[in-house]
Amino acid sequence: MESLDYIRENRERILGELIEFASIPSVSTDPSYAEGMARGSAWVAERMRKAGLENVRINPTSGHSIVTSTWTGAAGAPTILIYGHYDVQPPDPLERWKSPPFKPEVRDGRLYGRGVSDDKGPMLIPLGVAEAYMATAGRLPVNVKFLIEGEEECGSAHLEEFVAGHAEELKADFVLSADGAMWRPDEPSITVASRGMATLEFSVFGALKDLHSGRHGGSAPNPLQAISRLAASLHDAEGRVAVKGFYDRVRPPSNKARAMIANLPFDERAYFESIGAEPGWGEAGYSLLERQWLRPTLELNGLWGGYQGPGTKTVIPGEAHAKISCRLVPDQEPEEIVALVATHLKRYCPPGLRLEVKTGHGSKAYAIPDEHPGLALAEEVLDEVYGQRALRVRMGATVPIGLIFRNAIAAETVFFSFSTADEDYHAPNEFFRLQRLDDGLKAWNRYWQLLGERGTKGLSAGRAS
Amino acid sequence: MESLDYIRENRERILGELIEFASIPSVSTDPSYAEGMARGSAWVAERMRKAGLENVRINPTSGHSIVTSTWTGAAGAPTILIYGHYDVQPPDPLERWKSPPFKPEVRDGRLYGRGVSDDKGPMLIPLGVAEAYMATAGRLPVNVKFLIEGEEECGSAHLEEFVAGHAEELKADFVLSADGAMWRPDEPSITVASRGMATLEFSVFGALKDLHSGRHGGSAPNPLQAISRLAASLHDAEGRVAVKGFYDRVRPPSNKARAMIANLPFDERAYFESIGAEPGWGEAGYSLLERQWLRPTLELNGLWGGYQGPGTKTVIPGEAHAKISCRLVPDQEPEEIVALVATHLKRYCPPGLRLEVKTGHGSKAYAIPDEHPGLALAEEVLDEVYGQRALRVRMGATVPIGLIFRNAIAAETVFFSFSTADEDYHAPNEFFRLQRLDDGLKAWNRYWQLLGERGTKGLSAGRAS
Repeated sequence: MESLDYIRENRERILGELIEFASIPSVSTDPSYAEGMARGSAWVAERMRKAGLENVRINPTSGHSIVTSTWTGAAGAPTILIYGHYDVQPPDPLERWKSPPFKPEVRDGRLYGRGVSDDKGPMLIPLGVAEAYMATAGRLPVNVKFLIEGEEECGSAHLEEFVAGHAEELKADFVLSADGAMWRPDEPSITVASRGMATLEFSVFGALKDLHSGRHGGSAPNPLQAISRLAASLHDAEGRVAVKGFYDRVRPPSNKARAMIANLPFDERAYFESIGAEPGWGEAGYSLLERQWLRPTLELNGLWGGYQGPGTKTVIPGEAHAKISCRLVPDQEPEEIVALVATHLKRYCPPGLRLEVKTGHGSKAYAIPDEHPGLALAEEVLDEVYGQRALRVRMGATVPIGLIFRNAIAAETVFFSFSTADEDYHAPNEFFRLQRLDDGLKAWNRYWQLLGERGTKGLSAGRAS
Repeated sequence: MESLDYIRENRERILGELIEFASIPSVSTDPSYAEGMARGSAWVAERMRKAGLENVRINPTSGHSIVTSTWTGAAGAPTILIYGHYDVQPPDPLERWKSPPFKPEVRDGRLYGRGVSDDKGPMLIPLGVAEAYMATAGRLPVNVKFLIEGEEECGSAHLEEFVAGHAEELKADFVLSADGAMWRPDEPSITVASRGMATLEFSVFGALKDLHSGRHGGSAPNPLQAISRLAASLHDAEGRVAVKGFYDRVRPPSNKARAMIANLPFDERAYFESIGAEPGWGEAGYSLLERQWLRPTLELNGLWGGYQGPGTKTVIPGEAHAKISCRLVPDQEPEEIVALVATHLKRYCPPGLRLEVKTGHGSKAYAIPDEHPGLALAEEVLDEVYGQRALRVRMGATVPIGLIFRNAIAAETVFFSFSTADEDYHAPNEFFRLQRLDDGLKAWNRYWQLLGERGTKGLSAGRAS
């Protein structure tokens, strides 16, 4: 039996496994889900063993564990490092989910549940393909090393340390990532660049307790007004980030990059319809896709203080809080950006209030060299599976692994994911198209087969300088 | 037995009643406390019957019920309308309470619990005094009409309609209010003016759902940034309200008012120590007490949107919300102020976002005429009880009843409350000094006695033109 036939025969079981996997609440950013994280890593390890992979290990880190395994019996064939993550975003706001986030449910050809698209569905694909080859041929066409981490949703905080500390074991010709996403449901696409990220949280403190707004209104500092003023000061009226030095390292987009974007089929009106918003927002002087892919941003992700219940509470609260994330473009340094924002906040904090800044995690932007052969092979396979040429797109989001693997083991990363950007993976009602599960199993099966046939020749040509 | 002896003998029982009363969660602004509100009004009615009052009625309104009763057997003596309220502020943030808000607890001569100071403790005082006179003399020295409402904490929305609709029954020489508060614990004081209030809530909507801040950062409107900008636009850099027309009806403070305030003993440093904040905030050009008492304000009471949990969630939320209350000075009209703020928000709402404004309730500022004899009698009684001259102070907070009673039954209001402004009544750990319970029982007992002896002569002299 061919491995692809095995996959077809076992498709319902693989879907059942995904449902079981996505029932585990492995939320990495919230300590109250620690048990879900432990169950998540154990599930991945068990699934690896079942696929016939060797050296299965749950590696503790100072944060969440990283699950690794290998199969390196294809002497002379290329070695790929397969990346994915078993952690998921927090499920709130819970009341907006149509079915419970951790009870995955199939509706209309889609599986709904937290993490099904980011990244449990895509991550399960290479495990299913490995099992298919082992069950039918007793071997894989290529050497593989799996690395499935548990901190992707909080910036892969301990991945770099782990990869650097295990560089010899993890050595590979390149990385094939199950994480990432197709740009749109209708055109196959490959992501060739992603933005970096820098996060921080800040708080403004006034009085030591909540005060009556009548008694104290006019004399007691109001942290809500102060935080509004601070938050508003982060952008100018044209939508540019107003933090001094923020753009200092940002190169103007090349004509080639702007032309590539201008040539992509993109309907701005349809975009706004899809998100249910009105146009008119954003940095002046750039097209919508340029703002998403080529320009850095500073976004407020959370803002809160005072009374949020029904009716009125005439209170001057003692504190207010905000969360910020910046998306970075090449050459911007996360630590520097966080420092610049903190300096800005300190400078503009109104008198009578105390500011606290808590820096978060960061990662730089990444782009794979255009001529990398792993990228060309991905295009060839997608051609076969979809019968149309895949688009090369950039990504507004952040996948820090590109730089981590380049720096630690000199390997570039090919993003070969079968989730789709519209699958609400950081929002309620996250879903994964079942068609993409089938496409992905077929594509990964073929990719390994062709890579094994072609051998290692030329692979180093794609290595970045 | 004299009524005052009766009060002394029954003091522990009266305290027990206050604990029972304050155990009832009668929060008027939040519909989920409807049962607490019903229990609150029933408790008041039962307590009135026990005191020997007549015509006890729980009057339904379109909002919360108003409890009334009378005793009018003192032919020829003055008639006073006694005002108080049985509703309380919401208890949140719950985690900041040292003992549960609705399980009142005595610690160090103070009773801690939601509503003990505002207004259940002060409100219980005239009921205790009525009971004492009825039990010892079988009659009161004056005619009384009690009106205890359930919507003071949400702007007394249905009080005006009720008083106007029952003007004949409620007719009185003046109003003696158990609500209000002494300015400070060390000097007895009488409040002679209060600021008005206008409230509203506004929301800003972007996309129809929460979006990934990487994918959509730069193109999707961010309601948190928009609401920050809107909220920040409400004040200028000097702390003045920047809403067009906001100050149009505000008269500059008179020299007399400024001189009265300048002559009050007030230690600004001690004020900031008491609230645990730094100086430096507020409208330029006015002293701290002038800002609290003579100047209107616009305060944010709540602000929220996006992710508020631990860690990071890289989301662009679909909506953001804010609550505002303005404190008004004489001649400012609440409806006009709300309309001006709404116009301002509409004008400055950034493109790409949808604004919704929900107007709340309002009431005008109030001041009792300086020469009102009910005020002079209050000063005389406080002289006796405290052995020192009471200060005449103004109030930053809002007590809409002054204008309501003046307009509907041509009666001025004397604030004769025994709570104290530092008793955290809109914050966690609200408390009521037990000494004030004793002082209040003694003072109200004496006030009725003297008022009965002096008769109605001169009472109309204090009526406002």
